[in-house]
Amino acid sequence: MVLKGQEVAEHNNAKSCWVIVHGKAYDVTEFLPEHPGGQKIILRYAGKDATEEYEPIHPPDTLDKYLDASKHLGPVDMGTVEQEEKEEDPDEVGRLERIAQKPLLSQCYNLLDFEAVAARVMKKGAWGYYSSAADDEITLRENHGAFHRIWFRPKILVDVENIDISTTMLGAKTSIPVYVTATALGKLGHAEGEVVLTRASGKHDIIQMIPTLASCSFDEIIDAKEGDQVQWLQLYVNKDREITKKIVQHAEKRGCKGLFITVDAPQLGRREKDMRSKFTDPGTKVQEGQETDNSQGAARAISSFIDPALCWADIPWFQSITSMPIIIKGVQRVEDVLLAVEHGCQGVVLSNHGGRQLEFSRSAVEVLAETMPVLRERGLQDKIEVYIDGGVRRGTDILKALCLGARGVGIGRPLLYAMSAYGQPGVERAMQLLKDELEMNMRLIGCNRIEELHPGLLDTRSLFNHSAYHADNLSSTVYDPLAVPSQRPKPKL
Amino acid sequence: MVLKGQEVAEHNNAKSCWVIVHGKAYDVTEFLPEHPGGQKIILRYAGKDATEEYEPIHPPDTLDKYLDASKHLGPVDMGTVEQEEKEEDPDEVGRLERIAQKPLLSQCYNLLDFEAVAARVMKKGAWGYYSSAADDEITLRENHGAFHRIWFRPKILVDVENIDISTTMLGAKTSIPVYVTATALGKLGHAEGEVVLTRASGKHDIIQMIPTLASCSFDEIIDAKEGDQVQWLQLYVNKDREITKKIVQHAEKRGCKGLFITVDAPQLGRREKDMRSKFTDPGTKVQEGQETDNSQGAARAISSFIDPALCWADIPWFQSITSMPIIIKGVQRVEDVLLAVEHGCQGVVLSNHGGRQLEFSRSAVEVLAETMPVLRERGLQDKIEVYIDGGVRRGTDILKALCLGARGVGIGRPLLYAMSAYGQPGVERAMQLLKDELEMNMRLIGCNRIEELHPGLLDTRSLFNHSAYHADNLSSTVYDPLAVPSQRPKPKL
Amino acid sequence: MVLKGQEVAEHNNAKSCWVIVHGKAYDVTEFLPEHPGGQKIILRYAGKDATEEYEPIHPPDTLDKYLDASKHLGPVDMGTVEQEEKEEDPDEVGRLERIAQKPLLSQCYNLLDFEAVAARVMKKGAWGYYSSAADDEITLRENHGAFHRIWFRPKILVDVENIDISTTMLGAKTSIPVYVTATALGKLGHAEGEVVLTRASGKHDIIQMIPTLASCSFDEIIDAKEGDQVQWLQLYVNKDREITKKIVQHAEKRGCKGLFITVDAPQLGRREKDMRSKFTDPGTKVQEGQETDNSQGAARAISSFIDPALCWADIPWFQSITSMPIIIKGVQRVEDVLLAVEHGCQGVVLSNHGGRQLEFSRSAVEVLAETMPVLRERGLQDKIEVYIDGGVRRGTDILKALCLGARGVGIGRPLLYAMSAYGQPGVERAMQLLKDELEMNMRLIGCNRIEELHPGLLDTRSLFNHSAYHADNLSSTVYDPLAVPSQRPKPKL
Amino acid sequence: MVLKGQEVAEHNNAKSCWVIVHGKAYDVTEFLPEHPGGQKIILRYAGKDATEEYEPIHPPDTLDKYLDASKHLGPVDMGTVEQEEKEEDPDEVGRLERIAQKPLLSQCYNLLDFEAVAARVMKKGAWGYYSSAADDEITLRENHGAFHRIWFRPKILVDVENIDISTTMLGAKTSIPVYVTATALGKLGHAEGEVVLTRASGKHDIIQMIPTLASCSFDEIIDAKEGDQVQWLQLYVNKDREITKKIVQHAEKRGCKGLFITVDAPQLGRREKDMRSKFTDPGTKVQEGQETDNSQGAARAISSFIDPALCWADIPWFQSITSMPIIIKGVQRVEDVLLAVEHGCQGVVLSNHGGRQLEFSRSAVEVLAETMPVLRERGLQDKIEVYIDGGVRRGTDILKALCLGARGVGIGRPLLYAMSAYGQPGVERAMQLLKDELEMNMRLIGCNRIEELHPGLLDTRSLFNHSAYHADNLSSTVYDPLAVPSQRPKPKL
Repeated sequence: MVLKGQEVAEHNNAKSCWVIVHGKAYDVTEFLPEHPGGQKIILRYAGKDATEEYEPIHPPDTLDKYLDASKHLGPVDMGTVEQEEKEEDPDEVGRLERIAQKPLLSQCYNLLDFEAVAARVMKKGAWGYYSSAADDEITLRENHGAFHRIWFRPKILVDVENIDISTTMLGAKTSIPVYVTATALGKLGHAEGEVVLTRASGKHDIIQMIPTLASCSFDEIIDAKEGDQVQWLQLYVNKDREITKKIVQHAEKRGCKGLFITVDAPQLGRREKDMRSKFTDPGTKVQEGQETDNSQGAARAISSFIDPALCWADIPWFQSITSMPIIIKGVQRVEDVLLAVEHGCQGVVLSNHGGRQLEFSRSAVEVLAETMPVLRERGLQDKIEVYIDGGVRRGTDILKALCLGARGVGIGRPLLYAMSAYGQPGVERAMQLLKDELEMNMRLIGCNRIEELHPGLLDTRSLFNHSAYHADNLSSTVYDPLAVPSQRPKPKL
Repeated sequence: MVLKGQEVAEHNNAKSCWVIVHGKAYDVTEFLPEHPGGQKIILRYAGKDATEEYEPIHPPDTLDKYLDASKHLGPVDMGTVEQEEKEEDPDEVGRLERIAQKPLLSQCYNLLDFEAVAARVMKKGAWGYYSSAADDEITLRENHGAFHRIWFRPKILVDVENIDISTTMLGAKTSIPVYVTATALGKLGHAEGEVVLTRASGKHDIIQMIPTLASCSFDEIIDAKEGDQVQWLQLYVNKDREITKKIVQHAEKRGCKGLFITVDAPQLGRREKDMRSKFTDPGTKVQEGQETDNSQGAARAISSFIDPALCWADIPWFQSITSMPIIIKGVQRVEDVLLAVEHGCQGVVLSNHGGRQLEFSRSAVEVLAETMPVLRERGLQDKIEVYIDGGVRRGTDILKALCLGARGVGIGRPLLYAMSAYGQPGVERAMQLLKDELEMNMRLIGCNRIEELHPGLLDTRSLFNHSAYHADNLSSTVYDPLAVPSQRPKPKL
Repeated sequence: MVLKGQEVAEHNNAKSCWVIVHGKAYDVTEFLPEHPGGQKIILRYAGKDATEEYEPIHPPDTLDKYLDASKHLGPVDMGTVEQEEKEEDPDEVGRLERIAQKPLLSQCYNLLDFEAVAARVMKKGAWGYYSSAADDEITLRENHGAFHRIWFRPKILVDVENIDISTTMLGAKTSIPVYVTATALGKLGHAEGEVVLTRASGKHDIIQMIPTLASCSFDEIIDAKEGDQVQWLQLYVNKDREITKKIVQHAEKRGCKGLFITVDAPQLGRREKDMRSKFTDPGTKVQEGQETDNSQGAARAISSFIDPALCWADIPWFQSITSMPIIIKGVQRVEDVLLAVEHGCQGVVLSNHGGRQLEFSRSAVEVLAETMPVLRERGLQDKIEVYIDGGVRRGTDILKALCLGARGVGIGRPLLYAMSAYGQPGVERAMQLLKDELEMNMRLIGCNRIEELHPGLLDTRSLFNHSAYHADNLSSTVYDPLAVPSQRPKPKL
Repeated sequence: MVLKGQEVAEHNNAKSCWVIVHGKAYDVTEFLPEHPGGQKIILRYAGKDATEEYEPIHPPDTLDKYLDASKHLGPVDMGTVEQEEKEEDPDEVGRLERIAQKPLLSQCYNLLDFEAVAARVMKKGAWGYYSSAADDEITLRENHGAFHRIWFRPKILVDVENIDISTTMLGAKTSIPVYVTATALGKLGHAEGEVVLTRASGKHDIIQMIPTLASCSFDEIIDAKEGDQVQWLQLYVNKDREITKKIVQHAEKRGCKGLFITVDAPQLGRREKDMRSKFTDPGTKVQEGQETDNSQGAARAISSFIDPALCWADIPWFQSITSMPIIIKGVQRVEDVLLAVEHGCQGVVLSNHGGRQLEFSRSAVEVLAETMPVLRERGLQDKIEVYIDGGVRRGTDILKALCLGARGVGIGRPLLYAMSAYGQPGVERAMQLLKDELEMNMRLIGCNRIEELHPGLLDTRSLFNHSAYHADNLSSTVYDPLAVPSQRPKPKL
């Protein structure tokens, strides 16, 4: 039996709350208090079609997983659902114009170009979610900025006719020491979500790390791979370890070749740009001082299950439930790299979560430069693979990380931007540009293979120097600079 | 008997000077030469109603305290007082519009946001007084900027489910290692003045330091506290030690739990922005070179009683008149922290007075980083509590100070701005934001309790490096940059 | 027999491709696949007059050298060649106006002034080729910026009436320790190309290095010299060593006094500004994602012959075919300077190719400061002459390099800009300005002759400090700074 | 007999050249080739009234001194001299308006404020002469900027009721350790010239150094002093030592108390801003490339007599002709301070000539910090008085220099600007502001007398760090930053 819109529309409150998603109605009345994103956001759509809001932030299997079948009310005759009249949104009009005039893909010569285009063509909220970071976004900018404090000491007169930039990571061959790192909510940027990245990675023989917080379901992303394409799993550990166990073992069964346990997000960070971009004025009736419950942004809504109690003592349990290599993602000081070795982990990712968690975390590349000499001194450099992510935009960035001793680098946002701006061809061009840049720079630094890179090819003396700060934009905005005396007004006649 | 306006208006000169305050007339003729702010400012209101100018910069008990009862002339029939016609002030019109359209409180996501709103909604002179600082305001900016040269080395994989940010300061339990530091003239920002801060502090279990130069009277501020709410006394030492003694002993009797003696202001600083904001053009009749006696700003007017002869030898006297712990406020080098220990003080506040006194004083957090290793080396770290103030805007700032060894941090201007922009709800939201930020950052740095923080969680290698300067705005304005050759004019036909 | 335009016009495709250059037709059908710049660019002119595009990037003897005489079809009656109607190019109109109003030559007071004028009067593509550099052009700016981290420690009270800035380089006397370094494609800047530099050098007794990639032919440049004017040869080594041998031996025969083998360009760099300036929109019919084969800029087109396999083992071969001194151009670390000594080279040029090759190469002057102490420590300072190029704009820059121990400095772009803006008089004025500045600064530093300069006259403590970075323009552009809360809209009536 | 204008007008060429100055005619035909500023500038006024151009750059006794009495042709009937019609100069109109509306003197709160006003009210050429400096004016800005790398370590709890900022310099008591240093061409800024500074110095008990290149004559400046006011003589040493001897002995006779021999200007620097401000377009008839002989600015014209051969060996001669203390002005490294001690000089001025001579000279305050420890180590700190000048703008700057060990500091440009903007009252206010700032800062640093200052009150760790550079304005202007891809044009309908 097909429901009519009017029927659904009657269940428009907390006592009886139905919503329509993808043409089907669901009774979420009892689920309201459990919704990780809060009940307010659901109630806004009570009795209505919530698909547009729901889509990008819930993998397709969400309703099956979390809502009892008895609450699945079946198809709705969408012709009978009242269309909300939307006021024409001037932002959206401008955005469509910008899309129509966006540059050709071939005009993008580097990864930053994609970001420039994405900023123009993405919806404001989506851009806010992808681009935002913690506090004053100092760490966000430091992540790339730190690379600018490392300079090269290139060799010359080396036969560099043949350059090979392929390598292995966690034992798997790959075309370039770069992997697609896990990022959440791919459908904010592209209607198809993370599978776009999967397909481009397949074409370029690049490893993809599958995010826990994907818009696509895990299986969709696995299904999108081709041949012996390698994928890893990024894991936010659930308070309910049975759920975690199920996820991990399913991933291993489906062929994942590495388990990356994220440890830098026991609580998801506050990202003010994201919050600000979500704010909508409740209108003039609100009294001063009366708090309004604004959304805290997508990040917090989707992450409430993450276990803040996760600790080193949990590592053996993971080792007991899987034979995938275990990599600790989000390490930020050498002491914890040593602990990872002690706990028998196969790798670490030095990362500050793209600057989205603890503000004033150091850049991964700086932590790398602190870490590798200690590992070498203790003879541990081959006991563990060290990866970094954050701020990688150029072939030279990759080269610097490799010279310092990284096994590979993860790239996140730039590929999301390429996808948001140009879809799969965008991602592929971004990957090709990285390969071209890396190959050229290998030639120019005088090395033929990744194994030949070493720290002597770098000048890192300024890397640890943070004396020149990144612009403190809020402080600068509120600071009222001193002025010289102003001219006196012209005497009136 | 009720006086008529006309009667008062006759006493409009230095020979006989009456003024009206809060509906009552006072004969201040004899007091004129003693007025700390100079007689000029009083004479401007001779024979008139001075309430608006008087109010924010005099505590309510001022007239009772300083003007003999015989000079209190009694109530005035305010209907008979001639209203000065004010020209419509375009600044004020704009300000009222800005107030009407100010952002919702819930749109303020951090302490800097309040400052941005306050700048828009405060009167120019009040803003000038709060926001100004010494000379080129380099120190003002360095105070916050110094925190940007400290980076974190966070621990991961620590069970951070439960975070406790409460602590004790001078033996008193408090919800967060933050106190409201003393700032002058609260009524410039809010009609009710400092009691607003008292009430918000009470709600948040935060200690308040009561300023000597408050707009409210000391007792009003004490009376505004609730339950076992803790307050401290900030003291400018009067040349007349009997007055000082009375103040201190009264404060102790009224329950104050700490005596903070300010030592960085033997002379109150020149603050050019404040002076410039007070300047009003005396008109075109003034001849060039003829000095006009402009107000030196509120600061100097209210501070002439402060004793510049105060020295270490006075400390035993303070110890003899009170049993409150004595804390030296305004220490700026480790040598003086050691002297404070020798003199049996219970604490020091490392502070440069919010950048308002000696320009190119180092930031408190830098002095802290210089001080604590010396104390630890000499085993004195538990002999004295070390506080800092100046430039604290973020939870990360607090966390850095605590890691270095501070017992707590004082916050001044940001709370004044929150109060000026949104009243008590503003102050409360500011306090809540600090708690949220601190708790989240404790979790992200991997510590559960304040006691677990230590310097190893920081990278301070760049803290002492001042090579990148804060913009020198006046110099930049007057510097005329070199230009490339200009095009020649188009030949005329 | 003279060909008619119509006849040529029929051969307008890949199967039969004729082009007209300087009034003569050529059949390039078979040559198409061999063209170093790709066949696409030729096909654009198939059946047409290609002179304007061809001219600046091909030395005049190119067709004779590379196209069999049988393909030279002879003169065309240019009156019968159809003129393409060009739309009026607004860029070109503006440029002509700017030329008409350009400053007088006498208004140029330093080398940067010429660059400012050149930027206004050059064609966009030519400016793009000359001014562009690798990646984010950090190295480009660092080259000059590094000099700003070196300060003087001048002597006073020295008799400096007589100053002699002449010196010898590779045994040849010269008026100033400055040479004109090799730069490609001089006709992009001036219709006569490199011979303009030759003539100015002759007048000023300055040594010129002749570029492999000149617009003029090698012999034209040699023929333009006067008297015993000294010239050197810059060499890109061809994969076909016979060609290289012929070039080297011809140069020696024609009197060249030094062979500078370029080693920092096994692959010519990507220069995005150049690529972007070449881009032309193929029109709206192009589908998204469909790659368009845009020119990669002049650099890559003209350099495909360069041998990436060139290595130290090739040096003896060069020594066997010439008795000119051999100088390795493009050395970037002290280790390779030592290798050059070991291989019996007479000199090195510390250079990063004007920032056009490996981004984040250190400036030549920094490498110089690293190199000379090592050479002195090993007693090798007289075994090899050390030159630098890159970023030299001022007499003080030259003086700093000489104090550090350079034998001389090369100047490239600034002279191209002077030539592009004002022709030979421009180049001569630039040379005179350098001499004036150097002589004055010798006097002000208290030295009479070049030999008296030494490192003690400098303060180089900050030279190796890269903590303050050059603006990262793309990153800054794409970064969306945090904003304070915005005012709420005015309520509608 | 009084000459007629027409008569004079006939002598309007190099063969017979008469000029009128202050209503009298002079035959300068024979003097033309000897004129230090070149004959061109005189010929521009041949047969005409040259007073306006002549006045500010020639002391009144110039014609008597340098032109034989026989060439003094006597008074001219000025009514008969043809007035050149001047086009209304739009710059001048704007300037007069700016003068009419300039801020009140009482609105100037610091020395930079005077500079801001001077920039508005001075003639372009005069401003160009005063404000310009060498090359890119890096040193000019570094002079003040260096003070920003020095921070205070103030003492607290010191009795600072009584502050005494008086001191002695070269044995003379003075109210403040500040002297008015020598600057040229005072009449460019004020019609009365240097005597304005003399009078203000007298009122403030401040020592004045009389410049060789004053607009006023030496005796006028001496005559303007009052009572026992102290003056020193700044000396450019003439190639003709008899002239020098006469000047020195005359100065001693007239009471000068110190001889400051300038040694940093064997050749006066090129100052491009000055040159550019002097440039006037010779019109469109000038052909490209044809050099026009523009004035090199006032500096070079007036300084051709300076002896570049002056050296240490000349010092005994000076000691033989005067008993005034001899101070070497323009020392820039510690080695030369030691030489000054060895040569028995009584003092040195560490100075780079206000950034007008050798670009990239270090600031005087940095050289001071290098010098004093060496002097103390060798026990020479009391053998010589060390002064500095350059960049002093604030009381804190003076205080820093004194803490480091300077006996006093010279101030030049700021007083010229105060004079140019407001005449003598301006200079006096500037002096008072410095006294107020210094006294206040002495109190805030916790010292009562100048002798108590010492280096331990400073943090100079960043002083020698030049890694953050001053803006390189010409380079920045000519650099064309990279851009992200631009939007495509809207398709035409």
